[in-house]
Formats: sequence, structure tokens, C-alpha cells
Amino acid sequence: REETVKKYGLTENELLTLHERSVAAKSRAYCPYSKFRVGATLLSNNGQWIDGANVENASYGIGTCAERVALGKAVTEGIRSFKAVGVAADIEATCSPCGACRQFIREFCDLETPIFMFNIKGEYATMTISELLPLSFGPDVLPSPEVLEANRPQT
Amino acid sequence: REETVKKYGLTENELLTLHERSVAAKSRAYCPYSKFRVGATLLSNNGQWIDGANVENASYGIGTCAERVALGKAVTEGIRSFKAVGVAADIEATCSPCGACRQFIREFCDLETPIFMFNIKGEYATMTISELLPLSFGPDVLPSPEVLEANRPQT
Amino acid sequence: REETVKKYGLTENELLTLHERSVAAKSRAYCPYSKFRVGATLLSNNGQWIDGANVENASYGIGTCAERVALGKAVTEGIRSFKAVGVAADIEATCSPCGACRQFIREFCDLETPIFMFNIKGEYATMTISELLPLSFGPDVLPSPEVLEANRPQT
Amino acid sequence: REETVKKYGLTENELLTLHERSVAAKSRAYCPYSKFRVGATLLSNNGQWIDGANVENASYGIGTCAERVALGKAVTEGIRSFKAVGVAADIEATCSPCGACRQFIREFCDLETPIFMFNIKGEYATMTISELLPLSFGPDVLPSPEVLEANRPQT
Ligand SMILES: [Zn+2]
Ligand SMILES: [Zn+2]
Ligand SMILES: [Zn+2]
Ligand SMILES: [Zn+2]
Repeated sequence: REETVKKYGLTENELLTLHERSVAAKSRAYCPYSKFRVGATLLSNNGQWIDGANVENASYGIGTCAERVALGKAVTEGIRSFKAVGVAADIEATCSPCGACRQFIREFCDLETPIFMFNIKGEYATMTISELLPLSFGPDVLPSPEVLEANRPQT
Repeated sequence: REETVKKYGLTENELLTLHERSVAAKSRAYCPYSKFRVGATLLSNNGQWIDGANVENASYGIGTCAERVALGKAVTEGIRSFKAVGVAADIEATCSPCGACRQFIREFCDLETPIFMFNIKGEYATMTISELLPLSFGPDVLPSPEVLEANRPQT
Repeated sequence: REETVKKYGLTENELLTLHERSVAAKSRAYCPYSKFRVGATLLSNNGQWIDGANVENASYGIGTCAERVALGKAVTEGIRSFKAVGVAADIEATCSPCGACRQFIREFCDLETPIFMFNIKGEYATMTISELLPLSFGPDVLPSPEVLEANRPQT
Repeated sequence: REETVKKYGLTENELLTLHERSVAAKSRAYCPYSKFRVGATLLSNNGQWIDGANVENASYGIGTCAERVALGKAVTEGIRSFKAVGVAADIEATCSPCGACRQFIREFCDLETPIFMFNIKGEYATMTISELLPLSFGPDVLPSPEVLEANRPQT
């Protein structure tokens, strides 16, 4: 624990709070379809905490995840730089962010931002976003429409 | 104006605030790809106000809209019953919620909840969610997996 | 039946085929989570038939619907103009397209394109896409990023 | 080249075809918003080829990617086991699948399935889906709603 904390530049207390808040956030999930509650918590570089939970829909594909809810909230409150992300779920396996959430996180977080994934026992795995989404397709990779149009090959 | 206000059970003041907040929320949009800023504001039945704006992504299909950001925030803060929804954008046409947002709203709002759609001049159109998403596919229409499985026809 | 057929410019036979194909398409659904099988069939203006079914995902929000699968297939095979859309599901209620699918259809179909929604008994309701998605936000409503940026108000 | 081919159990010819088809598929993209054309090709274990391209929408978040279009097509045509995936785009950087597509692929492909990512010069990088989506959240990780409900902790 101490080592992880040191490696990612968090305090022991911040890691504890990340765990507690993401577990607490789970109870706000709206998941009548999957019954799979997930909570997510962001710690901003300014020390602010932002929580989210999954919000499902009768048309399953329209529902969204805890991580995206938390980030949507943060970004539209002007918070766009993060120190750590926490995710918690009710299973023994490590609950990692789904692919869409990794991509959503990628847009705003430094590649070295750690994601703490807590299982139901409070154990966790940690990976950076660059580890969770290697070779990622981020804002820096996408050329503007103008450039793409100008250089389009004739096939 | 007075008539709309009466018809949908809002006060004149609530309508004014709905307009002001949804316009203000626009400035929190993260939309480097479309440059299309949208703000959304919810008024809960308890008189709480919740704002959102669109949050885009380099993988366009992963971005989300103002209305879904606001609702995600509200729902995970325990607010699930709404009196009115406001949407504002920088165009002269009435900016209505996209189909995905209508479906997301449908999950939580009464069919008679009014959506106020403000254009750049502050003019607005109003429709209820049942008018915006007629014959909607909501939580009450979807049978449980068990019922569906038990009754599945043999083709 | 005859009247509907006349009103929307289909032949009796086309309507029959639309029903049969969308029912048959259901059996190709991948829906281990909802168990809710949906089939969709498109009839192009050139008389081609394209089928789809829903494809779900362990991360529910990443799954997609029958209508979007069928349209994705058609569009990337060069078919972009349609005479009718059929949707079939295993319930007695009319299964209408979800909001996201209405929006996806709106991008390619004429506002007057009819959507035939078949229930488990073969009964159907018909609405045009402009009726299913009134005041819709389509390609013609969205200004280009350049225009939006040039005209952005200073708030 | 020979080594890659051997490592992933493809023939030289299959790799060539994967490249040619995914490049060709690009030309079927509907991408008036991003102007970013992407093509994707699947090779099934039975030797069938399935192509897709991205299909965008005026409401950006409703658009979908080449990989998901190709897979939606394959799955609803009864093809659910794959030997390789190819992706091609008009940029010099390696165009990897976005997070949502990695998750969509994860649902159907073996963890060791190789993804070939071709750049505009025909150069490519190869990674398996387990490398592109480590610690992935797949169908095997998600408990059923019944199990989740029965074991839900009281917080
Ligand atoms: Zn997710
Ligand atoms: Zn929307
Ligand atoms: Zn749908
Ligand atoms: Zn993608």
C-alpha cells in the first residue's frame, strides 16, 4: 500500500478516501437491468472529489457508466485535470473500466494517471490509463477535418 | 409566455431561470470537434437546479450530450423527479434534444414533463417528452429477461 | 392493410416481406443480457433488403440495436436511400425504435419514410420518422464548426 | 512480416487481403463530420471476410466506428468466431480501435485474436485484444442480475 501510494504520488489518506467514496458512490447507481452497481470517484489536481455511478436505460445501449458520469460532472464544472480515478463494484474480480470509459478518461487524463480498481473486499489493482488503453487513439492523434480532407488519398 | 408558464405549472421566474442557467451552462461545454456548445438545465420537483453541457471525444461516438450529463449528475445525486428541462444552443433553429437524449430523459421523466428548447435569441419551443418521443420504448414496456425467455417463440 | 400500403407507396407484397424478414432477423440477435430479441429490416429505394438484429455487450451501454446494425450494414454497402423500415420484437406492445435509433435513421432517411413496428402477433403500427422524432436535430440543422466558431457569442 | 504471419497463424496471403480489404472498406465510410475515414475487416475462423466502415451522425455521440459496424454485420449473419481483425485509416500514426470498439470486439473474440492496425503507408502494428484491453471486463466477469441482487452488500 505504501509503495503504491508513493509510486503514484498520492497520500495514504487520499487512497483511503478514494476507496471510501467510490464504494459510497455505488449506492447511487440506477441499474434496474444489470443490478450491477458501480461507483467511481475522481480526485482532481486541486484536491476536489467528484463522484459518479452508473445510469442504465431500458434501451440498454443508451445507458452510461460510473466513470463517464463522474467525468461529465467534473468537466462541466470546469475540472479537467486529475490525480487519480477510483472504481468500485460488488464483485471479487477487479472491476476495470469498460473500453468506452477508458476512452472517455483518455480525453482528459494524463497518460500516467492511475486508476484504482477496488473489489468488494477492498483489495485493489492499479494501472495507468496508458496501461489500460495502450496505443490509444486520443485527441492528439486525430487530425482536423480540414487536414484530413486536403490529404485524402484518391481511393 | 404567461400561457406556457401556466400550462406547464412553472412560475414566470422558474422559466427565466431555466433560460439563464441553460445559456450559462453552454460555456462549460467541451466541444473541440463540433464547436457546437449546448447547455442543459433540469428543475427538479423539489426546486433543485442541475446543469450540464456536452462533452465530446476524439472518438466521436463516445462523446455525450448536455442533457445526459445533467441527468447523470442529477440521478446519481438522488434526484429523479423533474418539473422541467431546458436546452440552449448557439443557433437560430430550435435546438431539440437528440434521440438518445430523449430516450435518456424518458427513463426518468413523467411523459408530461415539458422540454424548453431555447434558440440563440432566447426564443423557445416547448414540447413534452411524450410529444418528442411518441410511442416511446420506456422501462414499463420492456419485460424482464425471465419473462422474455419463458415466452420466446420457437423461431 | 391495403390503405397503409397505398399511403406509403409499398406493395402488399413488400409489406409482407418486410414483416417476414424482420421477424426472421430476430433469430440472429445476440442478447444474452436482456433476452430481448429485436429484428429490423430495411427496404431500399432500389428494392434491396437489408436485415439486422441487436448485439449486446457485457458493458451494457456499448451494445447496439437491430436498426443501427441494419443501417450500418446498408450504408457501408453503399445503400443510403430507403423506402421503408420494419422492426419486430417478441412483445405484444408495439416495439418502436429507441431514441438513438430514431436519430440514426434520421441521418439517412427522408422525413416521410415509414417505420413499420410489428408486435409478436404480426399486428403493426406505422409512423414516419418525422412523426417518431418531431423537431428532429438532423444534418441540415447542424452548422459547420467554422460557422459556429465565427459566430460564437461572448458568453 | 513472415514472423508476424507465423506468430498469429495467418498465411501471407491472408494478411495481404486483410490489408487490401480494410483499405478498400475506408471508401464506404460516412464521415461528413470528422472527415476521418476508417475501414475494418474481419477474417472469420471459417475463412469468411466481413468489412465495415464508420458511420457518423449529426449528434456526434450516436455515430459508430468501422469495427463495430463490421462486427454487427458478422454477428447478425451468424459469424461469431474470428481469426484476425484489420483496421485502416488515412493517417501515418497507427490507428488503433477506440475503447468502445475494443470492448465490442472483446465480447466475441478470443483474447489472443490479433488486431492489425494499418497506417496510410501500409505499415502496421499488431496487438492481441488482451494486449489492447488488459484486465478487460468481458462477459465472463459480469455475474447475472440474480446473483448480484442476492449478494448485494447492505451499503
Ligand atoms: Zn464503462
Ligand atoms: Zn443528445
Ligand atoms: Zn435502438
Ligand atoms: Zn471505435
